[in-house]
Amino acid sequence: MKRILIEELSNCREKQVMVKGWVLRIRRLSQVVFLILRDRTGVLQVVVEPSVLEGAEISTESVVEIVGLVKSEPRSKAGFELEARSIKVLSLAENLPIQVNGATLNVPLDMALDHRVLSLRHAKINPVFKIQAILSQAFQDFLNREGFVQVFTPKIVASGTEGGTELFALDYFEEKAYLAQSPQFYKQMLVGAGYERVYEIGQVFRAEKHATSRHLNEYVSLDLEMGFIEDEHDIMDLENRLLAHMFAEVQERCAKELDMLEVRMPNVPDIPRVALLEALEILETQYSKARCDKDADLDPEGERLLSKYVLEQTGSEFVFVTDYPWTKRPMYTMPKDRGTTASFDLLFRGLEITTGGQRIHSYELLAENMRKKGLDPNHFPSYMSNFNIGMPPHGGLAIGLERLTAQLLGLSNVREASLFPRDRHRLTP
Amino acid sequence: MKRILIEELSNCREKQVMVKGWVLRIRRLSQVVFLILRDRTGVLQVVVEPSVLEGAEISTESVVEIVGLVKSEPRSKAGFELEARSIKVLSLAENLPIQVNGATLNVPLDMALDHRVLSLRHAKINPVFKIQAILSQAFQDFLNREGFVQVFTPKIVASGTEGGTELFALDYFEEKAYLAQSPQFYKQMLVGAGYERVYEIGQVFRAEKHATSRHLNEYVSLDLEMGFIEDEHDIMDLENRLLAHMFAEVQERCAKELDMLEVRMPNVPDIPRVALLEALEILETQYSKARCDKDADLDPEGERLLSKYVLEQTGSEFVFVTDYPWTKRPMYTMPKDRGTTASFDLLFRGLEITTGGQRIHSYELLAENMRKKGLDPNHFPSYMSNFNIGMPPHGGLAIGLERLTAQLLGLSNVREASLFPRDRHRLTP
Repeated sequence: MKRILIEELSNCREKQVMVKGWVLRIRRLSQVVFLILRDRTGVLQVVVEPSVLEGAEISTESVVEIVGLVKSEPRSKAGFELEARSIKVLSLAENLPIQVNGATLNVPLDMALDHRVLSLRHAKINPVFKIQAILSQAFQDFLNREGFVQVFTPKIVASGTEGGTELFALDYFEEKAYLAQSPQFYKQMLVGAGYERVYEIGQVFRAEKHATSRHLNEYVSLDLEMGFIEDEHDIMDLENRLLAHMFAEVQERCAKELDMLEVRMPNVPDIPRVALLEALEILETQYSKARCDKDADLDPEGERLLSKYVLEQTGSEFVFVTDYPWTKRPMYTMPKDRGTTASFDLLFRGLEITTGGQRIHSYELLAENMRKKGLDPNHFPSYMSNFNIGMPPHGGLAIGLERLTAQLLGLSNVREASLFPRDRHRLTP
Repeated sequence: MKRILIEELSNCREKQVMVKGWVLRIRRLSQVVFLILRDRTGVLQVVVEPSVLEGAEISTESVVEIVGLVKSEPRSKAGFELEARSIKVLSLAENLPIQVNGATLNVPLDMALDHRVLSLRHAKINPVFKIQAILSQAFQDFLNREGFVQVFTPKIVASGTEGGTELFALDYFEEKAYLAQSPQFYKQMLVGAGYERVYEIGQVFRAEKHATSRHLNEYVSLDLEMGFIEDEHDIMDLENRLLAHMFAEVQERCAKELDMLEVRMPNVPDIPRVALLEALEILETQYSKARCDKDADLDPEGERLLSKYVLEQTGSEFVFVTDYPWTKRPMYTMPKDRGTTASFDLLFRGLEITTGGQRIHSYELLAENMRKKGLDPNHFPSYMSNFNIGMPPHGGLAIGLERLTAQLLGLSNVREASLFPRDRHRLTP
């Protein structure tokens, strides 16, 4: 007998079927036991006569195989239930450290993460990662259609790309190596290698010591890079269409999950673009928020206030902040006039989820820009060598998958959007 | 004026267009210059009057923007060519260390890898990674349709999964950590977390010191794991259908690339399954190949000979080798009778490209199996804790993406199927 999924049962009335899954709830009455069975597609009420159990031990979260008859039952939510003929315990659950069949999982986040396999079974947590998978798939589908090639670039690298000291070091045989902070150099190189348009979905690693609700030390980066652009607005145009597609896919394919999590899906309009200086002025005039210095970036409060303002003014939950100052961006960023760069961030519901921009493609300009930043181009021979062998104008962006997921689903901590988060104090499970 | 791609030009006769790309070849005649332009979609012959060049410097591999008129030209391969009106050099190529416009790239592999951006432009190398991207996409599409969820699991881990000492170590703040050898534990956990069917595409890291044409120290693993299986044959059935889909997609979507690389696509039949003991007997009787010991595995020569035999006998270029001895498989492998396990390898054209099997889902059996292998279950508390909270019978497999690509395309070294390979002696670019 072949297993049938719970979501397929509605067409099986009066038929004998075999279902398999986890015991979500047990209610023992005097004459009968009610089980709620859960598989990856839904839940099912099962009526069990005591004789069927034959003294078998059953506990919540045990894995069972049940053969029974599908009977109409108007009082059940599905309109039918299963009358069990036999039950086999495939894996007994004992001494559960947390209960996962309540309406919400009322344990601290750290405890939920310690018992991750159990907490992931909870009805309010499990859907998070089904939605995340659709976001990832939709990112790929959209870019495939736009002529992008999926690439895989090394995570063990000889040097950092973003500057700073936030690198995890390791011994690579006789050499010192690092974990990649981003695929930045590689995706630029692959544009130059003739692929023109590439994307990568992969882990990046940041040895940042601070622990906030917005940071992970290892996260999944949705990266893309494209050649033959005019300027950074081509990249923003693409991201605008990309996000519209990703959210439309989630809307269409995750109705059940969105419903369970009570998610309000955003519209993706023509996303407003505000230069950083203008944004700082808005914060000053509207919210009396003083800038720290003339090259001030947006701090978390600034990001929230600006998003609030843009939402009120335009109805958009997204805003591109453009023209970041030269001092705030890495050496590969294309400079613009008045000390700015051809760069942008994307804020979504008050949090930065994307950094992007145009990159320098001229050897001379890159060398000059490095020197201005106090870097020696001779320390980057492998990278520099790509710029005098024919490199088109290009740019790209990176979206943090966990942040995007958390913002979309209204999760207050980015850890909730990571299956097995890595942070300052967490290396397991 | 908007850039048009070369593959779109056939509908543009007598029209003025703008194309952009790399200069593949230059042929200077007395009255005229012929350029071959290459973009991501194809090549184009461009006729340039000397007056158009106006003394502009142009070299092969430079990036140019050309405006011109599309004219029918029966003598050109495409049936048309471009009469240039203006040429702008976007990025000048100088002093190329290797030439990439010959029929083949006649440089040693190490030199090709040292100058990776250039070598990737070669017509015989560029298509490799377009095909690889389709393999990856087809893997995902097939599994999405089969109800699998894409997952992302951490690459920084607290301990190894496969035993042995082939781990790269790093300092994770105050703790010692390692790079993941495989997502094995995590994908099992996610089956148990209720997702039932998961896949991951991600890097794995092996600190193996030996350098062969078949090994990389960092590679891309196509991993899947599924719950509620009967035995390891369910996994082989799935892989059989999966590979058929992946190769059909490559056949359909990479006609140009396959043609360029002169690839012979395999049929994916009902793949024969041969128990390892039987395979060793075949090697002994057919090829007088003696076994090293009673638990002998297949060595590379054995893999080649067995593939040859199966091809001759059945016409299949694939063969599942099943029932590996208990001594040769990790502690999580489901034991079977007579010292064997519910495990398999898949050989394709003489090389192992997959390892898979059923895993142990019983706490007691797992603890006992660990102890028999000299391991202490108490050293794996996080892993063990998943087996008494309801774990379904399950199994899975991993396919090495670079190996699969190399075997399909007839590349003699797996490095040729990695954009930026990492090996014993290579950490750059």
